[in-house]
Amino acid sequence: MFKINENYLKLPGSYLFSTVGRKEREYKAAHPDKKVIKLSIGDVTQPLVPSIVEALHGAVDEMGKAETFRGYAPDLGYEFLRSAIASGDYKARGVDIDIDEIFVSDGAKCDSGNIQEILGLDNKIAVGDPVYPVYVDSNVMAGRTGTYDAATGMWSNVVYMPCLEENGFAPTLPKETPDIIYLCFPNNPTGATVTKDELQKWVDYANEKKALIIYDAAYEAYISESNVPHTVYECDGAKTCAIELRSFSKNAGFTGVRLGFTVIPKELKCGDVSLNALWARRHGTKYNGAPYIVQRAGEAVYSETGRQELKKQVAYYMNNAKVIKEGLAEAGFSVSGGVNAPYIWLKTVNGMSSWEFFDYVLEKANVVGTPGSGFGPSGEGYFRLTAFGTYENTVEAIERMKKLI
Amino acid sequence: MFKINENYLKLPGSYLFSTVGRKEREYKAAHPDKKVIKLSIGDVTQPLVPSIVEALHGAVDEMGKAETFRGYAPDLGYEFLRSAIASGDYKARGVDIDIDEIFVSDGAKCDSGNIQEILGLDNKIAVGDPVYPVYVDSNVMAGRTGTYDAATGMWSNVVYMPCLEENGFAPTLPKETPDIIYLCFPNNPTGATVTKDELQKWVDYANEKKALIIYDAAYEAYISESNVPHTVYECDGAKTCAIELRSFSKNAGFTGVRLGFTVIPKELKCGDVSLNALWARRHGTKYNGAPYIVQRAGEAVYSETGRQELKKQVAYYMNNAKVIKEGLAEAGFSVSGGVNAPYIWLKTVNGMSSWEFFDYVLEKANVVGTPGSGFGPSGEGYFRLTAFGTYENTVEAIERMKKLI
Repeated sequence: MFKINENYLKLPGSYLFSTVGRKEREYKAAHPDKKVIKLSIGDVTQPLVPSIVEALHGAVDEMGKAETFRGYAPDLGYEFLRSAIASGDYKARGVDIDIDEIFVSDGAKCDSGNIQEILGLDNKIAVGDPVYPVYVDSNVMAGRTGTYDAATGMWSNVVYMPCLEENGFAPTLPKETPDIIYLCFPNNPTGATVTKDELQKWVDYANEKKALIIYDAAYEAYISESNVPHTVYECDGAKTCAIELRSFSKNAGFTGVRLGFTVIPKELKCGDVSLNALWARRHGTKYNGAPYIVQRAGEAVYSETGRQELKKQVAYYMNNAKVIKEGLAEAGFSVSGGVNAPYIWLKTVNGMSSWEFFDYVLEKANVVGTPGSGFGPSGEGYFRLTAFGTYENTVEAIERMKKLI
Repeated sequence: MFKINENYLKLPGSYLFSTVGRKEREYKAAHPDKKVIKLSIGDVTQPLVPSIVEALHGAVDEMGKAETFRGYAPDLGYEFLRSAIASGDYKARGVDIDIDEIFVSDGAKCDSGNIQEILGLDNKIAVGDPVYPVYVDSNVMAGRTGTYDAATGMWSNVVYMPCLEENGFAPTLPKETPDIIYLCFPNNPTGATVTKDELQKWVDYANEKKALIIYDAAYEAYISESNVPHTVYECDGAKTCAIELRSFSKNAGFTGVRLGFTVIPKELKCGDVSLNALWARRHGTKYNGAPYIVQRAGEAVYSETGRQELKKQVAYYMNNAKVIKEGLAEAGFSVSGGVNAPYIWLKTVNGMSSWEFFDYVLEKANVVGTPGSGFGPSGEGYFRLTAFGTYENTVEAIERMKKLI
């Protein structure tokens, strides 16, 4: 008789963004006359830039001709893309990453969910609180997190690193030593980040404790301040303790195109076992590569024209972030984030819980945000807004929200 | 201190096709003057058909305009594609599959590797022997397979169902009762298949034993005989015991485009837990959808023009299968498969092992095949050739191979 993975039954409720999406659909269905503005899920709204569209068309044409048709991609991804990444994302910042340390994938969500598979079930994870739900949920599914306490919203076998007003909404070194540390800078959901000196402390800590850092840098393109690191490998010693996850979703608008990559340096070992080799085995066995046409689109991101076009796109969203942050601050809301990240972290008003505020904002302003508590217990009383809407919608949403206070 | 997943260290050697690829590259590097013909990995060679190219271009244009740009896809895949699947692959064969029972993915390899995640670690799997390596390897990684015996090439906690000459190279009901049964019809690697009556016996057996069938139908487009089922759901009772995996790689040449889907009927339960709900949770948490442009390409597969064009493409490959099978049989080789599948299963000559024959054929005929033993111990002494090459290369490869006997 077959048995299911009982760990799945421990998960409380559905995936956060599925619930937010359902509530939005239900509200719209009940109020077809209302113009609902979505500033919830971090989904981009600007079209692909011309150089990427051109690269896609070119690759589609190649796939339509026998001489240039491509079947299965190389396990780690096409060399043209991995070379562009090594050069554009690392060498340009003074970091040497070999192309065999780069694993192209269909996005950072999948990678951040799958990466735990190459690690033992007896590891204790540490996460920022609040945090991107995939880190915790994928570990729940694997069975690492112990039992869930509905009263506190916490798992018994997870080290929580609260991101609160007093620490600038960024995690600080935990008291209890974890085995695996998930870090996301610039942070989702709080929009906070760390300086290079601060990140160096995490790297030193991990090396000292022989802990593994899983570093999610999906939002690095939004960094505007000069002392903020774009990659964990800017820190000394990071290659012996850190895996880096990167995405094309936010810097190039690929949420519906699907492309990302993971960096695992060859120096990163557990005893004499190379994590690079383990992930290569996982990649070769359970994954079959990102589409050729999408990998060509990824290459275009690093072209001179692509860079210029995308710089403007990022600036467009960061202008939205400014509109949200300044608009809400002016109205009297307590807001943070939005300087090095496309997320604004907002305190609810009148002591409302995150979900109460979600319903309140949806009902009164017809704006969809994401309840902070959905990201973890310390997110309670907060609300996340994204800068990924259109400028016009963002301005309108903030005008409406200003009236709520 | 972080720990790795020790199960990975149990895996003998690297992923089969990575090894085949490496040997091929090494031979080519050492013999740059030789024209090596690859009939090994099941990778297609014909370009995408015009209607699919057109759909891709159209979708790329949509992604380049604000009004039609698409971000994150719905969790299960776009409804336009799931409707086309439900109608084209199921309703057309008298099977009712709801669109909420269809989960669009980036391919059957990923799905066949990931599907075991929703199942407990205390399940015992049964596999055909030989078999597509992902079924076993993904269970090794999860820790279900016990210990590996290098002498026999077998795992202590796996039920092997030998596919030998005496049973027409297709598995028969096992003596020991398993919890999970992987079936692949038409079969990879042997090219064998079963009639609907024979498959009904598997379904009845699974329902009786409360076992779960994971049914890989990646090659159904190659079925030429009328009494062979195209989907497991043609059998009575399959909805309470079977998950079906499907691919666009072989019927539409999508090996480098990446698209597939998994069907989990809502009736399929373990106690009162719906497997459809578990997989939906996994999909929502650890996956982010196939690219919009690729889903539009998938839709074109079901269009009238797409169907006509792809029928010709499948016929092209099946003509290659005929060339291989008849050519080698004529020369005195012992061959099977190739009638309802794009694979030909060939007995080695002179008592050679599969890998000896691999080296022999590569050396003497400059043809790359896949060693049967790479698919499992009962594959020893056999060799797989695929019909996915070009016609010209296939003819030339067979002419060369004829001289080996």
